[in-house]
Amino acid sequence: MTKKILIINTGGTLSSVMEDSGLCPGLKTEDIAKELRMVSGDTDLEMMDLFSLDSANIFPEDWAKIAATIANVRDDYSGIVLIHGTDTMAYTASMLSFMLPNINIPVVLTGSQLSMANPVADAMENCRCAIHMASAGYPGIFLAFNRKVMLGCRASKTRSLSFDAFDSINYPYVARISSLGMKVQKDLIPGRRGTFHLCNQYSDKVFMLKMFPGIHRSVLKSLQEMGYKGLYIEAYGMGGMPFLKHDFIAELGKLIEGGMTVLVGTQCKYDGSSLRIYETGRRALASGVLEAYDMTSEAALTKLMWVLGRTSDQREIRDYFSVSLCNEVSIPE
Amino acid sequence: MTKKILIINTGGTLSSVMEDSGLCPGLKTEDIAKELRMVSGDTDLEMMDLFSLDSANIFPEDWAKIAATIANVRDDYSGIVLIHGTDTMAYTASMLSFMLPNINIPVVLTGSQLSMANPVADAMENCRCAIHMASAGYPGIFLAFNRKVMLGCRASKTRSLSFDAFDSINYPYVARISSLGMKVQKDLIPGRRGTFHLCNQYSDKVFMLKMFPGIHRSVLKSLQEMGYKGLYIEAYGMGGMPFLKHDFIAELGKLIEGGMTVLVGTQCKYDGSSLRIYETGRRALASGVLEAYDMTSEAALTKLMWVLGRTSDQREIRDYFSVSLCNEVSIPE
Repeated sequence: MTKKILIINTGGTLSSVMEDSGLCPGLKTEDIAKELRMVSGDTDLEMMDLFSLDSANIFPEDWAKIAATIANVRDDYSGIVLIHGTDTMAYTASMLSFMLPNINIPVVLTGSQLSMANPVADAMENCRCAIHMASAGYPGIFLAFNRKVMLGCRASKTRSLSFDAFDSINYPYVARISSLGMKVQKDLIPGRRGTFHLCNQYSDKVFMLKMFPGIHRSVLKSLQEMGYKGLYIEAYGMGGMPFLKHDFIAELGKLIEGGMTVLVGTQCKYDGSSLRIYETGRRALASGVLEAYDMTSEAALTKLMWVLGRTSDQREIRDYFSVSLCNEVSIPE
Repeated sequence: MTKKILIINTGGTLSSVMEDSGLCPGLKTEDIAKELRMVSGDTDLEMMDLFSLDSANIFPEDWAKIAATIANVRDDYSGIVLIHGTDTMAYTASMLSFMLPNINIPVVLTGSQLSMANPVADAMENCRCAIHMASAGYPGIFLAFNRKVMLGCRASKTRSLSFDAFDSINYPYVARISSLGMKVQKDLIPGRRGTFHLCNQYSDKVFMLKMFPGIHRSVLKSLQEMGYKGLYIEAYGMGGMPFLKHDFIAELGKLIEGGMTVLVGTQCKYDGSSLRIYETGRRALASGVLEAYDMTSEAALTKLMWVLGRTSDQREIRDYFSVSLCNEVSIPE
């Protein structure tokens, strides 16, 4: 039987056109449908126009809408391809991984570094890979780019110009395309652990702070006064933060006492945090911070937004960060 | 004639010891001098204890002190090796590149991922590489790690656990050690363009902001109210920022009108920003932001702190960001 795949277009470079104001979303999904059908193999493609946005303009409310849309149609298709701008695609892929737990079909995000209208674009190759993964029968949230497929919750955009724009961080690629075809590493794909529920609540009172030398602890008080309930910190190295002269960690302790949830990871792209090794990390743990371990910043931020949308109970929050929900994190023994 | 190399110790993992509180700085330079002399070849090593700090605790005032110390002794040595914690080493290496223009000797930062006290540590290999580069006769600020040498202003810590902790970003390595010895790419090392002056003024009123979906523009007003004069933004992809629904770019324009200097780069580790391509980037340029191009975030932040320490004249600031001072940036034609 021919498989039915739904292509949901949200905009981005793939469907962009050059205007006087610069490159911006333009092509409608039907404009690109004809092209896509050339690479769809024996699948039957249907099209849906959801947004037409440069993904710098995608906000949390859009994630909730994308998740609800997918939840609505999930029983009508064998798989879904979500066309999305590359700028925030890894954030969306991470959040959908939390909002659509135990989804029963593959949902594959893709996009391109050049518009489909450009004769040397990567758009068709990326769509070919995404459509193939969407029809391969492995449920979950994935990101396909440059002939590689990764878990959505492990993706990060690491190169702004290269066609090889995304890396799978601290986790192997789950599929690759070569002259042998697409090879899927089934054992790397987390199985469904229960029934599907749409969980698209989130808190927008979460801030991401990248640590830098000279940072003043007064910024923490300001964030509290602005009403933030959660803070993800990209600390240094294994999770280092200052505690001499400028005692940032002590100030974090006060925030946590005041009810803020503080999650600490690293600004190093690879290898993750390990707060138990250095004095600075142990001090941070003693002050009550949670640890991001080897999560990407995209997954850490969106998991924090998602968890705080579900509960404000400190123990429950801590429990969520002590487990992996969709292979977004490896918790050490 | 035997070359005299000065080893300046500032602390970090290399000289750390395990205490009940966790790994923290401990070994004095004289403790490690004996070890270092085993890898010093025909150079004559002298030692200086400057600080004993986990580099998460290094602040801008420490950069000024390190720069002044180096300026003071620069005529007494053939080269200097600066032992420094890895967490903020790339920030220090970048700032020293600006604070010590046209330095007459090599200054090579190094450190390690494991303490010299650990039998399988990388400490001796890294020091061997740094000492060799410091005695090789190429003036400038370098960072030596894992048998590779890079320009200080191009270094970034990308891996928190691996011995291969640092990458040279958007610029080739200037030297590598292999079984053929150390091979230096002389053409990649910027020559001295004038006489040396110590330029260790800086502004500490600079903030680094990493963009994320859901960021609220009200944070910009808060930064202004907190007295910040400069803002470096890690935007998305080629420099994308939101301008629909939540018009972040318009709010930036107001900040700039109010006298703030705003520099925009990318959170993608590789390839840099290109604000002239997308509508979002062109809007940002029209609002008056400066562009970081292919600078690392470490170089972008420290260049902004350094420039604002020298001038508050808007035209002069713009001029500084339209040129490369030490090969920290490639400005497109």
